[in-house]
Amino acid sequence: MLLTRWRQYQDLALREDLLAALVVSVLLIPQSLAYALLAGLPAHVGLYASLLPLVLYAAFGSSPNLGVGPVAVLALMIGQTLALAPAGVSASDAALVLAAEVGLLMAAAALLRLDALASLLSVPVLHGFETGAALSIAMSQLPVLLGSPVHGNSIPQLWEQLQQTWQLGARAWLPLTAAYGLATVLALWLARRYAVSLLQRWMPAARATMLARLLPLLILMLAIAVAAATGAAQQGVALVGALPALQVPLGLPIADWALWRQMFPGALLIALVGYVSSLVVGESLARKRGQRVEPRRELAGLAGANLAAAFTGGMPVAASFSRSVLMMDAGSRTRMAGVWTAAFMAIAMLFLSAPLAALPTAVLAATIVVAVLSVISLTPFVEAWRYSRPECVLMVGVAVLTLLWGVSAALGLGVLGSVALLLQRTAKPHVALIGRVPGTEHYRNVERHEVECLDEVLGLRIDESLLFTNARSLTDVVQQHLAQHAEAKRVVLLMSPVNSIDLSGLEALRDLHASLARQGVRLDLSEVKGPVLDRLKASDWQRWFKGRVFLSHHHGMVEQ
Amino acid sequence: MLLTRWRQYQDLALREDLLAALVVSVLLIPQSLAYALLAGLPAHVGLYASLLPLVLYAAFGSSPNLGVGPVAVLALMIGQTLALAPAGVSASDAALVLAAEVGLLMAAAALLRLDALASLLSVPVLHGFETGAALSIAMSQLPVLLGSPVHGNSIPQLWEQLQQTWQLGARAWLPLTAAYGLATVLALWLARRYAVSLLQRWMPAARATMLARLLPLLILMLAIAVAAATGAAQQGVALVGALPALQVPLGLPIADWALWRQMFPGALLIALVGYVSSLVVGESLARKRGQRVEPRRELAGLAGANLAAAFTGGMPVAASFSRSVLMMDAGSRTRMAGVWTAAFMAIAMLFLSAPLAALPTAVLAATIVVAVLSVISLTPFVEAWRYSRPECVLMVGVAVLTLLWGVSAALGLGVLGSVALLLQRTAKPHVALIGRVPGTEHYRNVERHEVECLDEVLGLRIDESLLFTNARSLTDVVQQHLAQHAEAKRVVLLMSPVNSIDLSGLEALRDLHASLARQGVRLDLSEVKGPVLDRLKASDWQRWFKGRVFLSHHHGMVEQ
Repeated sequence: MLLTRWRQYQDLALREDLLAALVVSVLLIPQSLAYALLAGLPAHVGLYASLLPLVLYAAFGSSPNLGVGPVAVLALMIGQTLALAPAGVSASDAALVLAAEVGLLMAAAALLRLDALASLLSVPVLHGFETGAALSIAMSQLPVLLGSPVHGNSIPQLWEQLQQTWQLGARAWLPLTAAYGLATVLALWLARRYAVSLLQRWMPAARATMLARLLPLLILMLAIAVAAATGAAQQGVALVGALPALQVPLGLPIADWALWRQMFPGALLIALVGYVSSLVVGESLARKRGQRVEPRRELAGLAGANLAAAFTGGMPVAASFSRSVLMMDAGSRTRMAGVWTAAFMAIAMLFLSAPLAALPTAVLAATIVVAVLSVISLTPFVEAWRYSRPECVLMVGVAVLTLLWGVSAALGLGVLGSVALLLQRTAKPHVALIGRVPGTEHYRNVERHEVECLDEVLGLRIDESLLFTNARSLTDVVQQHLAQHAEAKRVVLLMSPVNSIDLSGLEALRDLHASLARQGVRLDLSEVKGPVLDRLKASDWQRWFKGRVFLSHHHGMVEQ
Repeated sequence: MLLTRWRQYQDLALREDLLAALVVSVLLIPQSLAYALLAGLPAHVGLYASLLPLVLYAAFGSSPNLGVGPVAVLALMIGQTLALAPAGVSASDAALVLAAEVGLLMAAAALLRLDALASLLSVPVLHGFETGAALSIAMSQLPVLLGSPVHGNSIPQLWEQLQQTWQLGARAWLPLTAAYGLATVLALWLARRYAVSLLQRWMPAARATMLARLLPLLILMLAIAVAAATGAAQQGVALVGALPALQVPLGLPIADWALWRQMFPGALLIALVGYVSSLVVGESLARKRGQRVEPRRELAGLAGANLAAAFTGGMPVAASFSRSVLMMDAGSRTRMAGVWTAAFMAIAMLFLSAPLAALPTAVLAATIVVAVLSVISLTPFVEAWRYSRPECVLMVGVAVLTLLWGVSAALGLGVLGSVALLLQRTAKPHVALIGRVPGTEHYRNVERHEVECLDEVLGLRIDESLLFTNARSLTDVVQQHLAQHAEAKRVVLLMSPVNSIDLSGLEALRDLHASLARQGVRLDLSEVKGPVLDRLKASDWQRWFKGRVFLSHHHGMVEQ
């Protein structure tokens, strides 16, 4: 049975998956090292996070295209969260706790079917955050790229440290390190911009694209060769340094409750951002292939990946946009591609750890800067400005806050801002005065149709669910209609568009009932949806509701 | 002119307003002292907060029924916020800064028309919070009532201090103080329960009610007399102590930026709770009289009151439920009743400060305990349990968190919880497959009407606005309908129920368009509302949208 399935897999998808895995590994090796350093962790933590987590995602996830592993934006968030760890706890230990919390939160969300919470990050918040985070990351890597002793990931932090450096008379940058960094930026940029079209002169387009993808790795190897040949380390250029041999450290995250508590708010945000960004990537790629992504299985897959990271010396992981696009372009067919990627990473750790030790960190910083700056685009801001000013302000605000104040404050205020805009948009329930289409039993909005109204009975249609966002003004809106029909003795609310009524809506209905009763006007309902009526009957509404409930609005209007 | 208006006022409302003001002042004197002590401030701060703020509310507010001044729930929040003030700043100074921030936030909200933010506090959050706060307040007053040295306003704090007291071997309570406290509780409870019906035996109901309202003041005066006659102070009973003479301290709140920053989160919550609770009281009383409350003018009135408190030695203020009900029952006609209340308070400060100094604090604590415990009711919890389990859990959660963890955490998590429930409820846009009512150009839901569908054209009606809460699953929902009609070459979305589309909705529409295009299916829209279409046209949608927009859904279906 298992053998048959393997045979099938071998026939159908093995070759494509292996090729995709190879291409992704080439990018994942430098990224995993670089993002671990970005998070303030030893470089090898990134490698550990690129082994078992990929296998666990393959076991539980749903998308064949996702390049799971360390991600730049999460690395920034991890770095800011680890800074809060109590003194005496190593960053690596704290990262394990963080990964465990992220994994547990995602598993809990999957079990409790909380995948709808992904909507908390609206489009403006997500765009603004990604732009701000990309700029923060680029800025935090600039000192590494230039060989500067300054470090930090917000403008005020960097500025303060730069001033200190000047006051101390220390050197703000090292020319030789900067040469490595800037040369790498230039080479990567040229490769990205011109390589494919240049190579196409000598070979078919498909092979040119393939070869161009190997260029970043070649540039890295060139940098290693130059650094080794010229003895860069003796001239003060910082290197990645020796990586540990291939022995994944199995173990439980430490049970220090103060640490667990302090990592928790960060874990909440990392879980949210990791899940949503992976989902967005997975959905957009799946649609290109006419596939579907299951949000709950994505949660389960990422939960497995993060728990695996927590037990094998890693850091929180998610799907990287660049690696996922690469994986799909390279033709991955099944989630096994992730397993092969992990296998290639293990092989790379066996054979490449000696040469990688001689890689200047400035070169790694350059790969990060080029990767994140390519994500930045002004187009969403311009489009938002044209489409909706308040949402554009929110987007810019989140970007600026991320840059100036850190990720947590920016995301927290961004979510609050989205909710505030939603409340402003939905604060009044839409209530239409409706009349009878002559000769029928149909009722339509009087403002848009030629219809007949009665003097003593007011027919109103509630066009939305009654929820806390709009419940508070129900009575006001109905009273405004009533004020123009002073002779009305009865109000019939057509409830067919009302899909649900929450507690605030129930109280609003009770308020409305009482307020009408005081004027001697009776409140009736018509065409209440089954589930809504069942819930109403389960409450104590029959004790205060004195009106009638009609199956048809017409019967309600003529009171049959 | 002014004189004419005064004459009119004198004829129509002066007597009623003066009487209401007198009745309210009788309650406001002890409450203002008690709530200032509850907030950890000197008792006279409460009196200052009951003078000018009432006048400013009368100038800018809109409700004739609101009893503005110190409020128990706000006092609890003020106390918790002041605990965060940096060392070296007196509580009174910090309270002025807090009042200034609350006033400025309310003024900003009024100017920016942010009154819709009041919906942030949904019914379950508000009920849960009020119950939790009432219990917290009662608990924090219990030690004062019993003469215990313990103080704090959450169960863990009180328990810890009680243990410390036992370890030190100090006396956990003083019998004589406890006697004052418990006797007052008993007397107030008896007065509240039996006074009116007892007095009605000898006098008409109206006069009995009036007299019963004076009983609390009589009980206080009796306590003062007993304390003075028996020399309670010498026996260790804590007294309110000398109040300052009538000289309201005019001055600016201090400009210490660290203090302003640390008070800010508390100010945000106090402004929100102060505004919403005042609005709820104002609206419910206004409806009883067939009046309306204007949310923005309420904000302006409360902003004025809090700024007045900031400049005249007070503390943050809002409308008290008990005093507002009293004010309406006593027949107040105009907002001038608040001005008269302030005048009576000034007179009381002139003549009553000597006797009030001899009042045992245990007696004040007893008035608070009786007042807040009368607010607690299990009914909303039972009703919520019957109507909506998740909202009941939220309500209980907020109450318990308020009791155990403090106001800020409880309110913050409560708001997040409401939003999470909202997202879960609205995560999928309701999309109905619609067909033609035979012989007409009307289209209805196929599940509820006998209608005709076409094979090549799929007609779908989007029943809600496309906002970030539901946008993410639009493509999925439409694709599910499409999967059952594989031969369709065109999808026409009937957009008439869509009142607005935010940026996330726009991106969802674009996603849907691209996803259909890949299957060779064209997306058309019909009956798009004018404002929605204008906004779409202002964006770059014409660059990607390849379908047509029809004025009538029928024309769209037959493509005329």
